[in-house]
Amino acid sequence: VPAPAAARAPTRPRRGMVAVRAEAGAGGGINPAIRKEEDKVVDTVVTGELAKPLTAYCRCWRSGTFPLCDGAHAKHNKATGDNVGPLLVKK
Amino acid sequence: VPAPAAARAPTRPRRGMVAVRAEAGAGGGINPAIRKEEDKVVDTVVTGELAKPLTAYCRCWRSGTFPLCDGAHAKHNKATGDNVGPLLVKK
Ligand code: FES
Ligand code: FES
Repeated sequence: VPAPAAARAPTRPRRGMVAVRAEAGAGGGINPAIRKEEDKVVDTVVTGELAKPLTAYCRCWRSGTFPLCDGAHAKHNKATGDNVGPLLVKK
Repeated sequence: VPAPAAARAPTRPRRGMVAVRAEAGAGGGINPAIRKEEDKVVDTVVTGELAKPLTAYCRCWRSGTFPLCDGAHAKHNKATGDNVGPLLVKK
C-alpha cells in the first residue's frame, strides 16, 4: 500500500509539471482539519441549553471554535471568492 | 472584463497542460452552487418555530433542500474522503 499523500516528503515540481494546492486536501473535501479522526462530524444543539439569545454555528469548517462560528468564514470567502456563512440559532 | 470561467467554452487541455477539476469551483471555495447571488449565505433558525423534535441543518453545501440537510453529505464524503455532516437542532 503506498503511503498517503500527506505522509510523503514534499517534492519540488519538475519542469512541465503544475503544482496544485487544494485548500481542503486532495479530492475536493471541504473540511481541511476539523476532527478528521471522526468518520462524520455531527454536532447537536439542544435549544433549551443555549446561553445567548443568538448563537452562530460554523458552516465553513474553518472556525477555531467549531461547531461555533468565530468569523473565519470572512477570510475564507475573501481568499477564495466563496460566499459561505454561519447558521444563526435564535432562542 | 473577461468572461467568468464558467461562461467560457470548455477547451481540451493542450499537451503538457494539466486539467484540474475543482469540485467547488476554482480557488478553493466550498459552496459550488447555493445562492451564489448572495455575498454571504446566512440562515436563521428560530427555535420556537421548529416543527420537529430534531432538525438537521446542512454544513456540506450540497443539500437540495439547503439550509436543511437532505443526506447529500454522504455522497460528498464518499466521493472525496471527507468527513462532514450536519448540525442537529433539538427542540
Ligand atoms: S467561522 Fe465558519 S461559518 Fe463562520
Ligand atoms: S446534506 Fe449537507 S450536511 Fe447533510
